[in-house]
Amino acid sequence: MTFDPLEFIEQKKSGGRHHAGEIASFIEKLVAGKIPDYQIAAWLMAVCFQGLRFDETLALTRSMAETGKILKWDKDGPPVVDKHSTGGVGDTVTLIVAPLVAAMGMRMGKHSGRGLGHTGGTVDKLESIPGFRTSLSEKEFKKIVNKVGCAIAGQDESMTPADGILYSLRDVTATINQESLIASSIMSKKLAGGAPVILLDVKVGAGAFMENQKKAESLARLMIRLGKASGRNVRAILSIMNSPLGRAAGNALEIEEAIRILRGEAAVNDPLVFLSIEIAARLATMCSLGAIKSTRSRARLLLRNGSALGRFREMVEMQGGNGKVVENPGKFLPHAKKILTLRSPLYGYIKSCDSLTIGELVRDMGGGRKSKSDVIDPTVGILLLKRVGDQLEKGDPICEIHTNGMIDDGDALERVAEAFVLTGRRPATQGAIFWNV
Amino acid sequence: MTFDPLEFIEQKKSGGRHHAGEIASFIEKLVAGKIPDYQIAAWLMAVCFQGLRFDETLALTRSMAETGKILKWDKDGPPVVDKHSTGGVGDTVTLIVAPLVAAMGMRMGKHSGRGLGHTGGTVDKLESIPGFRTSLSEKEFKKIVNKVGCAIAGQDESMTPADGILYSLRDVTATINQESLIASSIMSKKLAGGAPVILLDVKVGAGAFMENQKKAESLARLMIRLGKASGRNVRAILSIMNSPLGRAAGNALEIEEAIRILRGEAAVNDPLVFLSIEIAARLATMCSLGAIKSTRSRARLLLRNGSALGRFREMVEMQGGNGKVVENPGKFLPHAKKILTLRSPLYGYIKSCDSLTIGELVRDMGGGRKSKSDVIDPTVGILLLKRVGDQLEKGDPICEIHTNGMIDDGDALERVAEAFVLTGRRPATQGAIFWNV
Repeated sequence: MTFDPLEFIEQKKSGGRHHAGEIASFIEKLVAGKIPDYQIAAWLMAVCFQGLRFDETLALTRSMAETGKILKWDKDGPPVVDKHSTGGVGDTVTLIVAPLVAAMGMRMGKHSGRGLGHTGGTVDKLESIPGFRTSLSEKEFKKIVNKVGCAIAGQDESMTPADGILYSLRDVTATINQESLIASSIMSKKLAGGAPVILLDVKVGAGAFMENQKKAESLARLMIRLGKASGRNVRAILSIMNSPLGRAAGNALEIEEAIRILRGEAAVNDPLVFLSIEIAARLATMCSLGAIKSTRSRARLLLRNGSALGRFREMVEMQGGNGKVVENPGKFLPHAKKILTLRSPLYGYIKSCDSLTIGELVRDMGGGRKSKSDVIDPTVGILLLKRVGDQLEKGDPICEIHTNGMIDDGDALERVAEAFVLTGRRPATQGAIFWNV
Repeated sequence: MTFDPLEFIEQKKSGGRHHAGEIASFIEKLVAGKIPDYQIAAWLMAVCFQGLRFDETLALTRSMAETGKILKWDKDGPPVVDKHSTGGVGDTVTLIVAPLVAAMGMRMGKHSGRGLGHTGGTVDKLESIPGFRTSLSEKEFKKIVNKVGCAIAGQDESMTPADGILYSLRDVTATINQESLIASSIMSKKLAGGAPVILLDVKVGAGAFMENQKKAESLARLMIRLGKASGRNVRAILSIMNSPLGRAAGNALEIEEAIRILRGEAAVNDPLVFLSIEIAARLATMCSLGAIKSTRSRARLLLRNGSALGRFREMVEMQGGNGKVVENPGKFLPHAKKILTLRSPLYGYIKSCDSLTIGELVRDMGGGRKSKSDVIDPTVGILLLKRVGDQLEKGDPICEIHTNGMIDDGDALERVAEAFVLTGRRPATQGAIFWNV
């Protein structure tokens, strides 16, 4: 039977259900470039209104994975795990978790994206380490993972090609925010990555895909079901993302922060550290490496004693970077020309710090992309000296802006000030609160 | 303010209301080729779910008209009228009404479309008259209308360019059947045509845009309101289209039928004749040329006494065709190589005749287009010898298939037989029943 894209669109528009075979044909033809963009766009918009049922979403996810390369890992050796975060500002969890799980006796080979819009991309961040290569052959990638326990590479074009096409169209047709489309995009990449154990970190709050807990939970449940139906062990946690997760936003600044955490220089109740330990500990539990309490202590120990840092250094060196960056990040990472400081105009507390405002300012200073072809300035960014809940004296520095002048200094200070809400009374603090799904 | 297509899509997707200025910007940029097809398609699909309010539909209609040329007619001279039928099989109303209203003392200059899918196009039909030119300059077109009272030309590319773009996208994205999109497409062309008096013929039934009376009435009311808000005198009638309107389906065969009607050779209660007289009579009434009873008698007289035929002949000659076609259509029109006859297998009555089956068979024999670039064979078609309600003896001819062999004879006979439902008992007849909106 021939596949007719017009009938396929009509079927979804009228609330019908696609068969798995129809979805497979759609994705095959889409990857072969045989379905024009306008028909894909019309279908995506129809999906936003009519939704996809579970069996349709599963067929979509699998077809997206199966039209590309699916990684296979040696059964011998440490368990292979994967994680996914649904995007955030100042979120360097992957940079900490990958070497940490390696130190804990697991393997994690991640293909990560580049940043677009107000959120950064792990690959962009790593490229601020001089020499670091994110473009690895499959053979080289697996070799590093098998030897070090972790590797982080850029997207492999031969994996989930359908997702690349669908995502870039969703981005320009107001069809990003649909649960089944989000879930199939994420889970197809996880299936293609080949790890049998997957932990999902679904962000909730301002600037996240999912603005409230109910929607985030629903997305998490759907992704778990998709993974389980495909024979993977999948769990999820939800984590709050109203304010930036770490203290740094901007590529080199985030690498520097991640290294400081891997050096054991940050407090374990720092939200970024707390979440990273939790993710690593839960992955270990899913691999039957111990109960959660013991895997948590082990994760804390391996951060403190330099084991995770050692794995990070090995990974950096095997991917072409200078390993000395972990000894003295300030020396080996590039710097912006100028640092501006925002100071508190009053005595009080920080009530909130808006991720979106911070992320957009970093992007506009040259640290992110408005369109895919933009080149990134790794040095610019914002360093939060005070966090939500912190007390301020008048004149205290709140944050630093690392700039190369792409935005006028006065404008940058004014914009960053808008991210903060100050208050006279001590606010209820809200860290990386998370819960299990 | 700059127009952002992504925000425009998002606005409609979330159920918001576009301002007239936003719609004008959208249409301007669309005509300038500055909005990619996939964004237009996403917006069209969002409109199918969220609809457009009246003020949005009006702004869309006007913007579509105003981005192209709008015809102006001399105030001196007979009143200028226009009609529109929402498409049908065997519908040659325009070919009869245009010369008839000319004979009644009105002017009608029509730009007509080509056929696509199962419905024919007036321009394709006229081109089966050897030498007939449907590509006329504006000057020539107006000259013929002012001299003869009528002219029928192909679409003028400089009129309603937005409709061309939107329609061809709707056709391939399952977004044809949305009331505001249909209404704005039709009414923008009517506004651009410049006639102050417009009668709309909205088809109801199988094979029509609007499958039931309620929907057809709603569409008619919307178009009337759009026309009135733009200073035009607009009325509508609804007419049933379950079976083909005329006896002929196919380009040359329909011209031959129209000429026979203009020669006064058909009964006035023949549905095609009846509807044509009613449309002409109502247009005359709208121009204050008399009450409906008197304009109806006058229309019947002018069909009978050859006045309408004379206008048709003049029009054919001024548009490059051989006027003798009206004296002997059988001699001057091209013919198919072979005529097959479907005969009744039983004694009984014709209960129904499906337009869609007839239209699709004519198209597949080469008489219509599956894609825009197809070349039409004017000679093929189907001639209904019996109509719905007619009595049949066993072996009576029901219809003729005029074919050049593009479809196997046996297959053609089998397919045409499927169009008819025969019954043993006399069915309730249903002619060109219509009612006023």
